[in-house]
Amino acid sequence: MSLIHSERIATVASQLAKSANDVLFITPGADLRYLTGYDALPLERLTCLAVRSDGRAWMIVPTLEKPSALAHGVPDIGIELLDWQETENPYQLLMSQVGAIERPLVNNLMWVEKAFGIQGSSGVTVELAGKLLSNIREIKSAQEITFLHEAGAAIDEVHSNMDKWLRPGRTEREVGRDIAEAILAAGHVTVDFVIVASGPNGASPHHELSDRVIQAGEPVVVDIGGTMPSGYCSDCTRMYVCGQAPSEYVEHYAVLLAAQEAARQHARPGVTCESVDSTARDILTSAGLGDQFIHRTGHGIGMETHEEPYIVSGNQTLLVPGHAFSIEPGFYFANKYGARIEDIVICTDTGISSANNTSRELVVL
Amino acid sequence: MSLIHSERIATVASQLAKSANDVLFITPGADLRYLTGYDALPLERLTCLAVRSDGRAWMIVPTLEKPSALAHGVPDIGIELLDWQETENPYQLLMSQVGAIERPLVNNLMWVEKAFGIQGSSGVTVELAGKLLSNIREIKSAQEITFLHEAGAAIDEVHSNMDKWLRPGRTEREVGRDIAEAILAAGHVTVDFVIVASGPNGASPHHELSDRVIQAGEPVVVDIGGTMPSGYCSDCTRMYVCGQAPSEYVEHYAVLLAAQEAARQHARPGVTCESVDSTARDILTSAGLGDQFIHRTGHGIGMETHEEPYIVSGNQTLLVPGHAFSIEPGFYFANKYGARIEDIVICTDTGISSANNTSRELVVL
Repeated sequence: MSLIHSERIATVASQLAKSANDVLFITPGADLRYLTGYDALPLERLTCLAVRSDGRAWMIVPTLEKPSALAHGVPDIGIELLDWQETENPYQLLMSQVGAIERPLVNNLMWVEKAFGIQGSSGVTVELAGKLLSNIREIKSAQEITFLHEAGAAIDEVHSNMDKWLRPGRTEREVGRDIAEAILAAGHVTVDFVIVASGPNGASPHHELSDRVIQAGEPVVVDIGGTMPSGYCSDCTRMYVCGQAPSEYVEHYAVLLAAQEAARQHARPGVTCESVDSTARDILTSAGLGDQFIHRTGHGIGMETHEEPYIVSGNQTLLVPGHAFSIEPGFYFANKYGARIEDIVICTDTGISSANNTSRELVVL
Repeated sequence: MSLIHSERIATVASQLAKSANDVLFITPGADLRYLTGYDALPLERLTCLAVRSDGRAWMIVPTLEKPSALAHGVPDIGIELLDWQETENPYQLLMSQVGAIERPLVNNLMWVEKAFGIQGSSGVTVELAGKLLSNIREIKSAQEITFLHEAGAAIDEVHSNMDKWLRPGRTEREVGRDIAEAILAAGHVTVDFVIVASGPNGASPHHELSDRVIQAGEPVVVDIGGTMPSGYCSDCTRMYVCGQAPSEYVEHYAVLLAAQEAARQHARPGVTCESVDSTARDILTSAGLGDQFIHRTGHGIGMETHEEPYIVSGNQTLLVPGHAFSIEPGFYFANKYGARIEDIVICTDTGISSANNTSRELVVL
């Protein structure tokens, strides 16, 4: 993987060279893993990559993490590896190698204590990397698209087996525990979230597993995802009901399905992110469900479950091939029920390909 | 739990009133969970608590998270709950309620993009909460100590059953997968880390699971931990060998065991954190193993696996009853093997109590 990572760092350096900034600092997280392949632990001790606009790069790690950084081949990417002992000041050590800097960028999710450490040792104010990094990461390569399809297939396998676990009389927590095991068994290395929201709990989009006993005839939102060995994430929502759903719900669901399908049909190169949102929203609004659709239509996905591009009103970014994102309209009636249909899709030359491919109909168990 | 959380927020407010700062902002993470009981998702959308020195408190959450915040009883703590729609500016909305501020603090692990959002909307520079929060959190209440003992007992149960999984001919990854399942079966809700470092891999303190096949006669470092439903973490390292360890290793191990025991005996109210480190380190150094002990002796633990107080040279904090931390000296020989013995201990009125209580001897399987 070292060639891919060398190229990514070269891309960052060339973008820096075109910007008003001269250096980028990155602490552990998806940005670091994307650029170096090193999935470093996000700990209190400083691990930090520095990339200059001339292409030179350094990484400082705690001495006890040095074997891990070597095992991940950090020096093979052309990054100079530095390490610091427990009682040293890692910021000063890093700056002594990087040299004088003027307008540094930091990754948006850097902990503020680290950003202040960089400011304190360099004497200059940091700015957010923001679009400089997300513009690179949001366009997926052919290999990344393969990874997202693999993640999608893995979570589809879990949804395909839902009848084994989801039954009236069981609690959300019991069902959720089985699903979590199945997410790992399907090839994920971590379970990132398991939402099993039965009946009125479905009205809370990010409901947590509870001890509520699932009843026959009530809709259940199942929104699940994990991270694959590749580092890429899955995320898929399907709706289930054990027995007969209320007729009003079935009518609303037909509207939601049409809204999701319309957004899927609309998404293609050259349309704005916000137009994908409004395509779904207009259909729900026309049917009187607009006030019940209380969130945006989607989020980008890759090495993070939520990343650019966001499918939300106000985002005029034009879709291009390689954009990967969710399409997940929903409706939520307090104290009653909720619904959401979610697929991860990848923009192609002519439309989208879908990483999730199980039936989007209300699944009757 | 709302009384506990009301009291914690009142404590923060009174500490703020004694400081030069007037308000504290906290985004999702252990600080937020400690103060409010709300284990909010750390997502791109702003969720943020604000506490003023006069005791008033607000929390802003995305509208789709409002049902979760209500389910966690946020308003019952005396926190005014605000919510923002997808296209609103949450920072402006929060500031419009909090009013004019002069010297805000933020939690150290806040993402820098959120800290800059607060700065941008308030027009003032933020500072790190640092000691103001950690001085409160690092002293555990009787209930928190109970939670840490429960976590310790759960991870002890996993170590007690290691003979079921750790055998020559199996890979680290296979053993690690079984251990991860056992961590959940023992009552944890998440597996936070599983280190199974066999033979030469043991020389990397934070080694990741690999496909290396475990051999008879080689030491294996097993450092494992998870988070309990209470939110409190476990963390314990024991050393295993399948068969007969090299005689030189056995000699070194005896020194390490003595060093760990000496640090345990030394720890008590009134001694400095760094003296616990030097107690262990001096014994290893006297035996010629000082250069192989490449990390500090320990870290505080609670709702985070690593928090204050750190047991490291330079930390002159005096131990007081309620301090909870690891004692985990080790030695690491590159390309050969490593060793570490780790217990979580809690400072009592006269010494320490230990959350981990399985044998600290080299376990021969």
